[in-house]
Amino acid sequence: MIANNKTNTEPRITLVGAGPGDAELITLKGIKALQTADVVLYDALVNEELLDLAPDNATKIYVGKRSGDHSFSQDNINRLMVDYALNYGHVVRLKGGDPFVFGRGHEELEFAARYDISTQIVPGISSSIGVPGLQGIPVTHRGLSESFWVITGTTSDGKISADLYTAAKTNATVVVLMGIHKLEKITEIFKAEGKGALPVAVIQSGTTVNEKVAVGTANTIVNITNEQQISSPALIVLGEVVSLHPQYQLVKEVYDVVARG
Amino acid sequence: MIANNKTNTEPRITLVGAGPGDAELITLKGIKALQTADVVLYDALVNEELLDLAPDNATKIYVGKRSGDHSFSQDNINRLMVDYALNYGHVVRLKGGDPFVFGRGHEELEFAARYDISTQIVPGISSSIGVPGLQGIPVTHRGLSESFWVITGTTSDGKISADLYTAAKTNATVVVLMGIHKLEKITEIFKAEGKGALPVAVIQSGTTVNEKVAVGTANTIVNITNEQQISSPALIVLGEVVSLHPQYQLVKEVYDVVARG
Repeated sequence: MIANNKTNTEPRITLVGAGPGDAELITLKGIKALQTADVVLYDALVNEELLDLAPDNATKIYVGKRSGDHSFSQDNINRLMVDYALNYGHVVRLKGGDPFVFGRGHEELEFAARYDISTQIVPGISSSIGVPGLQGIPVTHRGLSESFWVITGTTSDGKISADLYTAAKTNATVVVLMGIHKLEKITEIFKAEGKGALPVAVIQSGTTVNEKVAVGTANTIVNITNEQQISSPALIVLGEVVSLHPQYQLVKEVYDVVARG
Repeated sequence: MIANNKTNTEPRITLVGAGPGDAELITLKGIKALQTADVVLYDALVNEELLDLAPDNATKIYVGKRSGDHSFSQDNINRLMVDYALNYGHVVRLKGGDPFVFGRGHEELEFAARYDISTQIVPGISSSIGVPGLQGIPVTHRGLSESFWVITGTTSDGKISADLYTAAKTNATVVVLMGIHKLEKITEIFKAEGKGALPVAVIQSGTTVNEKVAVGTANTIVNITNEQQISSPALIVLGEVVSLHPQYQLVKEVYDVVARG
């Protein structure tokens, strides 16, 4: 697939988590990997400022699934990654968040192993923890939550994850990634458990200049999210810890006024 | 409590997640915070190499609960943090992992807010995701797990979290932090659900030179962990994704031999 063959560089692949969006939320180890990259293959949710950390002559290729001209399947990406490593040397596979939080990172490692290419891993800040935290919503908090459960809103078969039905019965903080398009269905699951008043936040494009947040309850969050025109990429946090968000107090006061008629 | 009063520095507090242990797993934003610190208050599981990032004349104080001479309660830490900010300027509160994953970070923010001290948050790599990932155990993987549930093994009342009993009934990857002393009880909960053969890993001091890993099943992990003298700090991962760890294949082969008699 690639013609010129540099035999003087050892093929290797580093899977790097770029963090949730803010370029400064990459790790020092991630920066060092980028600085020695011959090729960078990067995803849709990666901050493109990070590409400047790679050498000027490094090849930088967007493999996000939203690309206008191309559609990169996971299989395409795997093959591209291996081809570039064999021909150019050090490939940095730069992925949004952490490579193993719905990032299909392990599939890429397995593919590289088939070609005996050495691989390294650099974890990243997962948006599931970092984005709520920066909004003032701790995923755990004494007296409110002693666990958090991170669930995909987009399963491989397109259905709602069975885990969400169980999660709605627990006191865990529930974080749903890639679930904004199913927000109504997700809140219905919680309402069916008598949790209509459970605090819920939806955060779009966390840690970036496009960040938006909606705070409400399972009963109200769909309307609030629509009013605020919040769209993908966004994550959903359901749990008592959302009551610690500064906006939640305002929400509560409005309800109290309404309740008093 | 502190006598000299520098009025030329604005009091502020930055809560920084130091990551799981490897000093290079701090974020660029965390490094920048440390570089402008007047005071650093750091915890037991923080890599002390990170203190070198702070200016030479910055005050660096260990407030870990394992300190030999002192026992710092959360209340002590809160007050120390505020006193130093009011008197010295920029306090970096450096915490292991992420500040909000069982880190009591929000309690510290609330305390600072009472004194009108401005606060900033810098997320860190949580060991719950990063440590299994670096060991070759992805917390999510297509076909094996579409969610992961992070639970404390040490609840404030000293009991096993009720969430663990529910977690044992699900297909979520379960990550237990601070639970090594309750490993036997935790595995019993899974065995009671018919999950004696569920793959389990215990990882001590992940990403540090003291890292150790035990891989087995709910039935065998207690013995393996004892044999390998694995102790605190350690995390437990229970779930099918553990079968992707390179050692698990070896474990399986041994079982197959035993099964054949």
